[in-house]
Formats: sequence, C-alpha cells, structure tokens
Amino acid sequence: MKLYDYFRSSAAYRVRIALALKGLEVERVFVHLARGEQRLPAFLAKNPQGLAPALELDDGTVLTQSLAIIEYLDTLTPSPRLVPADPLRAAKVRGVALAIACDIHPLNNRRVLDYLRGRLGQSEEAVDLWVRHWALTGGLEAIERLVEPGPYCFGAEPTLADVCLIPQMFAARRFATPLAALPKLLAIEAHCAAHPAFAAAHPARQPDAE
Amino acid sequence: MKLYDYFRSSAAYRVRIALALKGLEVERVFVHLARGEQRLPAFLAKNPQGLAPALELDDGTVLTQSLAIIEYLDTLTPSPRLVPADPLRAAKVRGVALAIACDIHPLNNRRVLDYLRGRLGQSEEAVDLWVRHWALTGGLEAIERLVEPGPYCFGAEPTLADVCLIPQMFAARRFATPLAALPKLLAIEAHCAAHPAFAAAHPARQPDAE
Repeated sequence: MKLYDYFRSSAAYRVRIALALKGLEVERVFVHLARGEQRLPAFLAKNPQGLAPALELDDGTVLTQSLAIIEYLDTLTPSPRLVPADPLRAAKVRGVALAIACDIHPLNNRRVLDYLRGRLGQSEEAVDLWVRHWALTGGLEAIERLVEPGPYCFGAEPTLADVCLIPQMFAARRFATPLAALPKLLAIEAHCAAHPAFAAAHPARQPDAE
Repeated sequence: MKLYDYFRSSAAYRVRIALALKGLEVERVFVHLARGEQRLPAFLAKNPQGLAPALELDDGTVLTQSLAIIEYLDTLTPSPRLVPADPLRAAKVRGVALAIACDIHPLNNRRVLDYLRGRLGQSEEAVDLWVRHWALTGGLEAIERLVEPGPYCFGAEPTLADVCLIPQMFAARRFATPLAALPKLLAIEAHCAAHPAFAAAHPARQPDAE
C-alpha cells in the first residue's frame, strides 16, 4: 500500500495515526500541497479531488477520503478497532469524528483559506478569526460536551474520534485558537501525545516536515 | 425514534432518504434553521452542535451527524444495505459520500454563508460564486469521475453515495450551479427522482416546506 501524504494535512495526519495504531507499514509518497502538487495531472489521475491523503492498494486501486480509508483499514485489520462493533457506540464515535471532519476541518482547509485571502481579499487577521470561529463554535465547544469519561474520547482505548481530534487540536493551535475552556479535550490531547502511535504520526516527525 | 428535521437541510434530506429506502417511520420534530431554532437551549441540550439533523432513540439517546445516523440505521435495518458489505466497495461508496459531506456541503451551509454575508460583508453575488466554486471544483466535477456505471452511483442499487449526491444536486440547483458538464451525475439524479423513497424525501414534499 502507498499513502499519498503531506505532513501538515489534518486528514493525512488522521490516516497516519490509524496506520500507526494498527502497526501497518506503507510506502509514502509526499504531495506538497503548499506548492500545488495535488493539482498536477499525475496526481489528479490518482485522486480527481486533488486532495491528500489517498491510499493506493497493491492492485492500483486508489481510495480517497481519510475516513473512508480508515474505515477500510479498520475492516481489514480490526486490531485495535477504531470504530466500535456496538452500533450505538459506533454512532457516537462517528458522530464526533464527523463533527470534526465535516464541520471544522473543511473550513480551515488550505484551499478555503486561499480563497478567502485571494478572491475575497481578506486579511490574515480575518482569516485567523474565521478559523478560530469554526474551530470553536459548533465545533470543539460542542465536542467537549459529546465526549465521555477518558482518558480517550470514548473510554479506555483510542477510537476514530481521537484519530480525528488530535490533528484538529494541532490545527487549532497553529491558528492560536483559545483552548482553555476545553479541559476534557486538553486532557485527551495530553494523553494521546504520550501514545507512541499518535506521537509517530505528528507532522513535525514526518520526512517531508519543514 | 424522533428525527429533528428541516426541509431544506441537505444533511436532514440525506437521513430522510435513508429512512424512506429502509421503510422506517419516525416521529418528526421540525427545527426551523432559518429562524435560528437550532440555537435554542432546548435543542442545544439535544445536540450541542446546534445542527440538524439529530435522531433521538426511544431511550432518549441522541445521535448526531447525518452519516453517523445513516450508518447506525444501516446496521440496525440492513435491508437495503446502503454501505456495501464488501470493504473495498464500502470504501468507494464512503469516499463519494464523504467528498460531498466534507468537501462540498460544509461550504454551502447556511451558517457559513451567513458569516460571509455578515462578518465578511460579501455580496449575494460573491456568495453565489463561492457556493458554485466549491460545488464544482474538487467536488461534483471529481465525483463525476469517481462514480461507476449506473443507474446509481455504484451500480444497480442506491447506496450512501446516492443518498448524499441527491441533496447536493438539489443545493447546487438552488444556487444556479452549471451542471451540464456532469452527464453521469445528471443521469443518476434523474434515475433517483423516479424512485419513491428519494421522491418522498424531497424538501418540497415535507410538512415544514415553505
């Protein structure tokens, strides 16, 4: 398997955590999003969306969308399970994962911020306020109320919720988002930071880190 | 079960399609998003994100996020299956569903457009251009290349991909997005329109439609 990766992409960071938790080794291909390599024809032939990550299987099939990739890995290598087998617990875990993947991350994505700066002529200050607003309002503030007793989002073991939360906390910090009112999420973040799989997937530890 | 619903919400529309495909009847509670009812304390106590849809189970448990709700329904009432049992096909179906749910819909959400109009002082024309840009670029244009021979997105039966595609095509039309370059998606849309479950879930046919 081959992962099309970029160190600072939150979505790629999720897949790196999932792979590390499952002890799966994959070949890495780095797609430099800041230089626009995701828009080169060779990459668009792999993923028409022009987004990282993508996972290429040994037969050449390319899977897109971080959560679809992680659900696939979870079925093929179900130890440890990231989406619980119990349907109700699975719904709660996916609920938090999707609150991040649908309602926070897309709004702080590089392509969206570039549109705000370029076509809408917004200042860096306005862009930072935008990122912080969507990170908190209806986002991390709500997730603080949806998680269960720890040390992870849903109990004693990491799930897809933690796999999504940690990259989003990293992104929130990059934009100096105030996080002090989120004590549960800060505790989960600290706990994950001490886990070797989460640590290994951190953007600063990737070969393409700048 | 009780569905917190709003006729024009794309995410609620997805859940309505899934319920109709599975022949499940639920109680409906209408949350008027345009009047801000999703921000009332009574609703925030149900869903801290302040978003529709939410599904309240008979024991009072509330599930959030349309895709998490549909995956839950798919496990409990697996006929017809909306996420295929085969892991590879499931990944492809989820890939298209998430391309819509993560990379198109959040950017044309009412709350985001209100921020553009209000805090960023953008004109209706600029808002329309924003919606159309994200609907097409890296969105529906990519999905046109990801779907398989029809009549549905992935073959002979509707899946989670169609459940997400149809509300997004409806939203694209509301903003006069040019769709002529998407012949496969237009054919899927026409096929779904003739399916009673998709038809019954259409915004215009809901009790709260305006």
